[in-house]
Amino acid sequence: MLESGQQDSGFQALRFDDGVLHLLDQRLLPGRETWLDIDRVDDVAAAIRDLAVRGAPAIGIAAAYGAVLSAMQRGDDRAGWLEDLDRLEQARPTAVNLAWAVERMRRLAAGDAMPEVARIEREARAIHRDDIAANRAMAEAGSGLIERGSGVLTHCNTGSLATGGIGTALGVVVAGFRAGRIERVFAGETRPWLQGARLTAWELAREGVPFEVVIDSAAASLMASGRVSWVITGADRIAANGDVANKIGTYSLAVLARHHGVGFMIVAPSSTLDPATPSGRGIEIEHRSAGEIWAAAGLSGEVSEAFGAWNPVFDITPFELIDCIVTETGVYRPPYDFRSPDAAFATKAHGQAQ
Amino acid sequence: MLESGQQDSGFQALRFDDGVLHLLDQRLLPGRETWLDIDRVDDVAAAIRDLAVRGAPAIGIAAAYGAVLSAMQRGDDRAGWLEDLDRLEQARPTAVNLAWAVERMRRLAAGDAMPEVARIEREARAIHRDDIAANRAMAEAGSGLIERGSGVLTHCNTGSLATGGIGTALGVVVAGFRAGRIERVFAGETRPWLQGARLTAWELAREGVPFEVVIDSAAASLMASGRVSWVITGADRIAANGDVANKIGTYSLAVLARHHGVGFMIVAPSSTLDPATPSGRGIEIEHRSAGEIWAAAGLSGEVSEAFGAWNPVFDITPFELIDCIVTETGVYRPPYDFRSPDAAFATKAHGQAQ
Repeated sequence: MLESGQQDSGFQALRFDDGVLHLLDQRLLPGRETWLDIDRVDDVAAAIRDLAVRGAPAIGIAAAYGAVLSAMQRGDDRAGWLEDLDRLEQARPTAVNLAWAVERMRRLAAGDAMPEVARIEREARAIHRDDIAANRAMAEAGSGLIERGSGVLTHCNTGSLATGGIGTALGVVVAGFRAGRIERVFAGETRPWLQGARLTAWELAREGVPFEVVIDSAAASLMASGRVSWVITGADRIAANGDVANKIGTYSLAVLARHHGVGFMIVAPSSTLDPATPSGRGIEIEHRSAGEIWAAAGLSGEVSEAFGAWNPVFDITPFELIDCIVTETGVYRPPYDFRSPDAAFATKAHGQAQ
Repeated sequence: MLESGQQDSGFQALRFDDGVLHLLDQRLLPGRETWLDIDRVDDVAAAIRDLAVRGAPAIGIAAAYGAVLSAMQRGDDRAGWLEDLDRLEQARPTAVNLAWAVERMRRLAAGDAMPEVARIEREARAIHRDDIAANRAMAEAGSGLIERGSGVLTHCNTGSLATGGIGTALGVVVAGFRAGRIERVFAGETRPWLQGARLTAWELAREGVPFEVVIDSAAASLMASGRVSWVITGADRIAANGDVANKIGTYSLAVLARHHGVGFMIVAPSSTLDPATPSGRGIEIEHRSAGEIWAAAGLSGEVSEAFGAWNPVFDITPFELIDCIVTETGVYRPPYDFRSPDAAFATKAHGQAQ
């Protein structure tokens, strides 16, 4: 169905060469394409915290390369390296891929010895390479679920900017468009940071996929108009029961999709699964400063200080509202049981009606 | 329950003195309080079209004073005056109060003669005065429906900036707060023009009501958290069956409220009723340029031209999702029958549990 190579986007927003992590600064897109060249682990943590790099899988990969930079700085100082890993893990709380990537690094120091830099770099590159492969597998499995002639709505940014490869939800969207299944693409602007209006729009334009941006609160009208049959988003963390933490607004879209009989698909690599967390109630939701709302709205700092705001940047979508979760291992449906490859296989076979 | 005077906001964003219409330019709030002094009807139409004045009741009042300015310019030219009325009516399509106010003016010229300026000005002032009184009546009726200790979420701006008096939905919110019924006020920011973040926040701060702004897509999480028991909004047009056209995002909130068991209240003067339109399907929805989305997001005109957007600025909420509609004549509940004062009286009595 999908020609490998054809589906790849031809650009990577995150590269590691000769001991330097190159990051496309996502805060300045689409206005400017500026690269950060980072050779210190503290700067990696800052780039994650300050949203220069964002998207759950991309954060995990950046942290893995951060571990390489730390090892280059720390030499034989195993304790210092482990401290750096803690700092990387704490840069943002909600996405589990970050903790997952850091944990893979920690395991390299399971003995008493400090692992070699080359060994750490191999592990980081493996994490990156696996994500690229997972993106391809998800694009194929997810786009196969979409009927020819469909319209889809996506949220936030889940493409090459958010991952190591072609993306999660946006990978499905682009692959589905190229396969002739998707005819209309709508991108929710995704306040307060406008990742949809800034980043997804930029990526879709770059990929040659026609699209229309909608403000987040127009999604309900869009669904009522009959123009979309799937909402497709990524995930920052998936609990054992299938509850999903993702960008604020995802839960809203899930409720609206159910009301309108529109399908709701989550696309995320299995590194996003958090089997240790039974349900969404156990997931810490990051709240950011009120100032971010006002800044993105172009309002001044004075206003920001005078006016209050409630600014959670993620929400929890209960599994009951999610029609399917696509990972690189297959298509899962409720009730979710990610420990059972058979369940995934069975639903994957069902999904392969393409 | 409500002390008259106490509930009045003490400021008017729209005044007519000595043949000049003074309008607080809402596009510059909350950063700057700049007044427009308008003495030509074309400038009134432009102020409506360009959103210097907005809010369905305020637009109607501004148009009524525009009719006075036209009469002062036109002298005995009845045909020219009627043409100006058409232009005023066409400045924005969705709010029915505009058409209603213009129609009240047209009726003054029901004979062949051009009505006197003084007669037209009396009619305009009556429209304004009636709106102030309607605001008071709605604030009392609406706030009486809210249980002590409640949290409420409102959308867009429906206060003194949007009406002739203390407002519609925001009048209920402020009155409910002062009566000790409402403990927590949340204001949806209301993309793309951010009327909630800019104007409602400015009004609530001015009235001394504590509040938190939320991005529109956080409303679902807010409801799931149990912190709000009512969503309260205004209306731009109410069809005969109770379907409501209002600011984009209202329909989204209505669906979300129903899903979470949160009440959904519409507050609008009876001039917003459009008995000639059987249902929401007959209401024209204004679409504005994609550039408005990008501009409010601080993105450049270049981006605006390269990227597409779907930008309806109103949506339709079907009456089934609306728990009550409060007008100055009482509280209505589904199935809606606005021709029956008895129905309103019966439900008003029920609502008077305060």
